[in-house]
Amino acid sequence: MDRKKYREHLESIFQAGLDAVDPMEAVARAVSRKDNDLIVVGKTYRLDEYERIFVIGAGKAGAPMARAMEEILGDRLESGRITVKYGHTVPLDTVVTKEAGHPIPDEQGIAGAEEIVKLANEAGEKDLVFCVISGGGSALLVSPAEGISLQEKQAVTSELLACGASIEEINTVRKHMSKVKGGQLARACSPATVVTLILSDVVGDPLDVIASGPTVPDTSSFEECLEIVKRYELAGKLPASVMKRIEGGAKGAVPETPKEGEEVFERVQNEIVGNSLSAVLAASRKAESLGYSPLVLSTRIEGETREVAHVHAAIFREVLATGFPLKPPACILSGGETTVTLKGKGKGGRNQEFSLAVALHIQGEDRIFFLSGGTDGTDGPTDAAGAFADGTTVERARGLNMDALQTLDANDSYPLFDALGDLLITGPTNTNVMDLRICLIV
Amino acid sequence: MDRKKYREHLESIFQAGLDAVDPMEAVARAVSRKDNDLIVVGKTYRLDEYERIFVIGAGKAGAPMARAMEEILGDRLESGRITVKYGHTVPLDTVVTKEAGHPIPDEQGIAGAEEIVKLANEAGEKDLVFCVISGGGSALLVSPAEGISLQEKQAVTSELLACGASIEEINTVRKHMSKVKGGQLARACSPATVVTLILSDVVGDPLDVIASGPTVPDTSSFEECLEIVKRYELAGKLPASVMKRIEGGAKGAVPETPKEGEEVFERVQNEIVGNSLSAVLAASRKAESLGYSPLVLSTRIEGETREVAHVHAAIFREVLATGFPLKPPACILSGGETTVTLKGKGKGGRNQEFSLAVALHIQGEDRIFFLSGGTDGTDGPTDAAGAFADGTTVERARGLNMDALQTLDANDSYPLFDALGDLLITGPTNTNVMDLRICLIV
Repeated sequence: MDRKKYREHLESIFQAGLDAVDPMEAVARAVSRKDNDLIVVGKTYRLDEYERIFVIGAGKAGAPMARAMEEILGDRLESGRITVKYGHTVPLDTVVTKEAGHPIPDEQGIAGAEEIVKLANEAGEKDLVFCVISGGGSALLVSPAEGISLQEKQAVTSELLACGASIEEINTVRKHMSKVKGGQLARACSPATVVTLILSDVVGDPLDVIASGPTVPDTSSFEECLEIVKRYELAGKLPASVMKRIEGGAKGAVPETPKEGEEVFERVQNEIVGNSLSAVLAASRKAESLGYSPLVLSTRIEGETREVAHVHAAIFREVLATGFPLKPPACILSGGETTVTLKGKGKGGRNQEFSLAVALHIQGEDRIFFLSGGTDGTDGPTDAAGAFADGTTVERARGLNMDALQTLDANDSYPLFDALGDLLITGPTNTNVMDLRICLIV
Repeated sequence: MDRKKYREHLESIFQAGLDAVDPMEAVARAVSRKDNDLIVVGKTYRLDEYERIFVIGAGKAGAPMARAMEEILGDRLESGRITVKYGHTVPLDTVVTKEAGHPIPDEQGIAGAEEIVKLANEAGEKDLVFCVISGGGSALLVSPAEGISLQEKQAVTSELLACGASIEEINTVRKHMSKVKGGQLARACSPATVVTLILSDVVGDPLDVIASGPTVPDTSSFEECLEIVKRYELAGKLPASVMKRIEGGAKGAVPETPKEGEEVFERVQNEIVGNSLSAVLAASRKAESLGYSPLVLSTRIEGETREVAHVHAAIFREVLATGFPLKPPACILSGGETTVTLKGKGKGGRNQEFSLAVALHIQGEDRIFFLSGGTDGTDGPTDAAGAFADGTTVERARGLNMDALQTLDANDSYPLFDALGDLLITGPTNTNVMDLRICLIV
């Protein structure tokens, strides 16, 4: 049956995307070794010039990324410390793994960060430090600044969220409450040479935002923190320790985060080893090999899920109706991460909502087949990565007494796709480059 | 200066789109005459086989469409009657124009429809009737069914809107309250031959929806009307005359609207002579002639304006960052019509909001230049058709003490673009194929 065939195509295209951002693969693609030469995206490090080589880092994909470095470095690897989310481990020979809380940081995360900073401090001028960074790194690599407790730091984030501060403003304050964020881990490593390998889970790959940019020059300042406090009238609401730090920092009594051009960064290389584009392009090549003309729309897709889905569906239907922007058989792909403004109390995730919204706009079309899935294998608080949709979805749901539009309004997409057998289940993938949407127009 | 150059490009690309859907041009492109043969999109009518030829119709572009038919038919045109919006006239030799209310129908519209139906009824088996239909035709060609007043009909629409009925449900009921909608004008013309020329202002060109499909088979029924009344518990709220008609119709006591396969439609040709795609493709060709690689995203774009703009901006920025979906210099085009959920009390329109939302997402980019405009020359309740946006828009507005985000939240885009000198002013264009969005990435 055709539906089955196209669903298999969608699955294999999605899998090709996942394979390209497998953390081990991604590191191995970016870092190659030939005897004494280690080449990281075109830049060569002569290993015999370094006394010791370390691996540090944090993020959900930390363990396989560290494993890749263990395989590449072999007995040249001195030691290492990483922090990963509970359960996200793989067996490592040399690097010590700490499991910690995500998305809510915990004391384990603090303990892990302490060990990492200690190792970074030990690294000297003749040492080489590899830092492996991936999604979740900001919560996992948690190290409140001197005199501030984890609870106080979390209270600051809550207040900033509640007052309507932008994500940039929140990050500005958070970087200045930390010992490692905003380039401060690079400062801890200095004068060692630092190579940071980054698996990006942020739209557009802004280096200073991914995992709060621990080895990247910071562009924000204590003075801006003070402005934010004033703008949202937070002076009376923030913990005294935090206000003291911000006011002290603004007066120059507390060291600033390191900035572009500072000596700290002279021996730092930051490299994206995998991102949404890696996954989307690999999926696109797979689609091409299956006979589809591929079109990559964008890897920067954000916005309210059902509205974004509406625009996607308008493009899919145009292909069918007029052959624009390209003729069938076509595969249209996009990456990025949408949001859902919750209105109901149902169970689902942004990818399942995306598929349900697309289903509503392609009802009855028998030549459109769609899949939206999270590359981390987890869509919202469900065991699914996403869901399949086609022209029969809404009608088949109706056959089970489920109204697709009401289900969408209730944010209850999971039970519907579960009942239809249309969930995408991958299990945890140990990687994350946001979402991947694939549409076949045949 | 570059901004000036790209703005001129945007304007000329937009104008090329407008030219392609000029009502006279559109009719002349679809209808050609060679002596005795009149060819309408591949179908030939031998004029000497017809005794009389009439032109009827309604819509904002009715006058220039009728003028085109006058020029083509010359002295073979017997007579004609059209209804257009107040002020939307052009000098006609034979066809009589009635001006009427739009979007709120009025008594002039009823009087015009009566004359049109009278002429349709007079047309016999040997006669040929051209029907010119364009946006606004539904309100302009207004003819309440026997026993129902215009006020009662309008009350029905208000009740349906208030109870949350879908646009399809509203149209189902409206067609069954009318003497002309839902194929009934074709029935009035029968047994004459009917050629309907349609300038589409509806996404996807659904023939039965544009101007309520006066010469198109209806797919809805009185029984469905009754179901809608029950679904929304409207029995006590609708005028007695309306309930009587719906209940009578459901019992078969009132004639149904004509359906697919009925004899009425045996001699009816419905043709789209211009639509969003006509404009978008002409604009695309113009862009190509200016050296841009064009990409038509979709002519079916709908949804909440600022969200749709966000998705568009994500695509524009991808072009710049990675060369996908195509490499610069590129021109990305889309058609369709978005909506605005009003939250503020400002002055603007969906095209100006679209441009403002794009401006917020392309701040600082110096290689993206954007224009969104309504092809009818009117964007919301303003004298502008739309607005230009680029990477300097937000900053220049700030220089005038205007905050772009606050302005967008207040639905107050017009004053901002007015102050910047970035409004697109075309004046009324006498055509309407929804909106046209053009982005240059250079």
